[in-house]
Amino acid sequence: MRPRERTLRGDASEAPVVTDAYGRAGVDIAAGNEAVERYQKLSAAWSHPDQLDSLGGFGGLFRLPGDSKRALVASTDGVGTKILIAAELQRYDTVGADLVNHCVNDILVVNADPLFFLDYLAVGKLQPAVAAQIVAGVHRACRDNNCALLGGETAEMPGLYAPEHFDLAGTIVGVVQIEDVPRREDVIPGDAIIGLPSVGLHTNGYALARSLIAPDEWKTQFAGLTLGEVLLAEHPSYHAAVRAMQKTARVKSMSHITGGGLLENVPRTLPSNAKAVFEAARWPVPPIFDELCRRGNLSHTERYRALNMGIGYTLVVPLEDAPRAAGATAGARVVGWVEARDQGEPQVVIHPAR
Amino acid sequence: MRPRERTLRGDASEAPVVTDAYGRAGVDIAAGNEAVERYQKLSAAWSHPDQLDSLGGFGGLFRLPGDSKRALVASTDGVGTKILIAAELQRYDTVGADLVNHCVNDILVVNADPLFFLDYLAVGKLQPAVAAQIVAGVHRACRDNNCALLGGETAEMPGLYAPEHFDLAGTIVGVVQIEDVPRREDVIPGDAIIGLPSVGLHTNGYALARSLIAPDEWKTQFAGLTLGEVLLAEHPSYHAAVRAMQKTARVKSMSHITGGGLLENVPRTLPSNAKAVFEAARWPVPPIFDELCRRGNLSHTERYRALNMGIGYTLVVPLEDAPRAAGATAGARVVGWVEARDQGEPQVVIHPAR
Repeated sequence: MRPRERTLRGDASEAPVVTDAYGRAGVDIAAGNEAVERYQKLSAAWSHPDQLDSLGGFGGLFRLPGDSKRALVASTDGVGTKILIAAELQRYDTVGADLVNHCVNDILVVNADPLFFLDYLAVGKLQPAVAAQIVAGVHRACRDNNCALLGGETAEMPGLYAPEHFDLAGTIVGVVQIEDVPRREDVIPGDAIIGLPSVGLHTNGYALARSLIAPDEWKTQFAGLTLGEVLLAEHPSYHAAVRAMQKTARVKSMSHITGGGLLENVPRTLPSNAKAVFEAARWPVPPIFDELCRRGNLSHTERYRALNMGIGYTLVVPLEDAPRAAGATAGARVVGWVEARDQGEPQVVIHPAR
Repeated sequence: MRPRERTLRGDASEAPVVTDAYGRAGVDIAAGNEAVERYQKLSAAWSHPDQLDSLGGFGGLFRLPGDSKRALVASTDGVGTKILIAAELQRYDTVGADLVNHCVNDILVVNADPLFFLDYLAVGKLQPAVAAQIVAGVHRACRDNNCALLGGETAEMPGLYAPEHFDLAGTIVGVVQIEDVPRREDVIPGDAIIGLPSVGLHTNGYALARSLIAPDEWKTQFAGLTLGEVLLAEHPSYHAAVRAMQKTARVKSMSHITGGGLLENVPRTLPSNAKAVFEAARWPVPPIFDELCRRGNLSHTERYRALNMGIGYTLVVPLEDAPRAAGATAGARVVGWVEARDQGEPQVVIHPAR
């Protein structure tokens, strides 16, 4: 979910600036930006009176019928081309959980708790056992997040998908107290940024990864697993970790690090007079990222825009709350600070600028 | 949305019995049934306590937070292979409306009013002007149905879709007073069945249609238009017509005639001791259906299962309300009756059995 705009993915098109890494992976960022602009014109022409678009700069909120203090929050997303790796390796039990957890995190940034989820599975040739494995992953993650799997659609479309291919998307609906929606204006210089660890690429950067690691390498050993297994590592839900942290610390704003990486996702959680300064030495980077950076000779900007580089979710907390926040859940650590920003300065700085 | 099960489409897989017409169109009904059975096992193992699955036999309901008398209703669907015709003819402005109206009708059968919609658009190669035309169709139909277009996702996945291909799916969320959810038990022998006219195939039967009408014929004149235009005729929303009818007649149960046709969709609106008897002479059949039946030499069962054959939506009303119901909206007419059913008899009979 992106603020004031429709999401665009493609493991790439979410990032609004052209990068060499994306271009090399065959995804057109300029086209993505143009599509978003065209979509925004539609919304400008008409939106429903119960949409709460302007609230905190986040889209996707709708006034809960009969309750002026709460809002429904909805988000649609797909797994992206991670599914091509799953299909090639015939590992069907995790992409459903990738999708659900991605969506849970997307609405968690506005503090929403999930209510229900619906999936859309499109296949070239319906293999019931495969479809059931995929949906079982959706169901498992829904259960883990206390989210109903309310429905779904399985579409067999032989003319559109190759026999062994499939696409998987889903929609989550959650609920939030409107007064609990984070306000980026509350963020001030001196606040700390807590990072929650990623376990791998999650659901972004796969067009790039697939351009750098060919399928014939996916069974190669890497970091104690195969490269394919490392690439398929399951996108975690941060819901429980965030709720644990909020019991002990005041959380001012949050960001799910998806397409666009730290560089593009963190700015939405900051007022324009603030910047986020990260110290990369403060968190461990899973080996797959070093491998991708090395193979692609990715620049500083490329790596932190195309990949999450080890941080899956960020939270801005008052400095005095930072130790308690970092101690509230495994793997959480202070990864940076909010500083004053002069006009024209970037909103995200990552040291060292290697 | 189907009762007590996840939906399955593919312009075909929604129909739970193998038919020759489907088989000829390359879609595997048996596989669809097996997938549904496997999905049902997942739901049986765990479902969320706020899911109202058993209510009236319809799935997809979730208790509205903080309001014990209302429920949210959600449904996910795709346009199916109708998009392959749209892509070939480069007509991008109607499939979005097909999708929204299909979803509006799907939740209308439980009497829900739409709240909001989210779309999922997946493309091989992102062409912003094309994507914007597709989403403009979504936006237009949302506005026409007073439904917020709350968000969406556009995914560019060159490895999964051919450059000129796309897939379009969406999720609708609506709200209903739980006491207004139709109860099929209220339907009794002697009730009348009102039919609302279809304008064409709507969003089902396209695998079959494409097997019978090759792309090189889509520009051929047919019934004052081209065959392609006839095939792309926009799936209408029945929301306004149904609400108009409910002002003057008691509506006991309703059915959206999608994949499976009259034969598979109407039974869900009936108790097991009742059958629906249709008189085909009572409604006009758009010429495209006769053309498809002739070309495919479709049997009685095939035509009424793969195609809507001119009826897009049915409503069961008390006999004494039938004239008022039929007079409440253009095109509505009495198309059949509910009769007592003996065990073993079919639940839908269509005369004449040509």
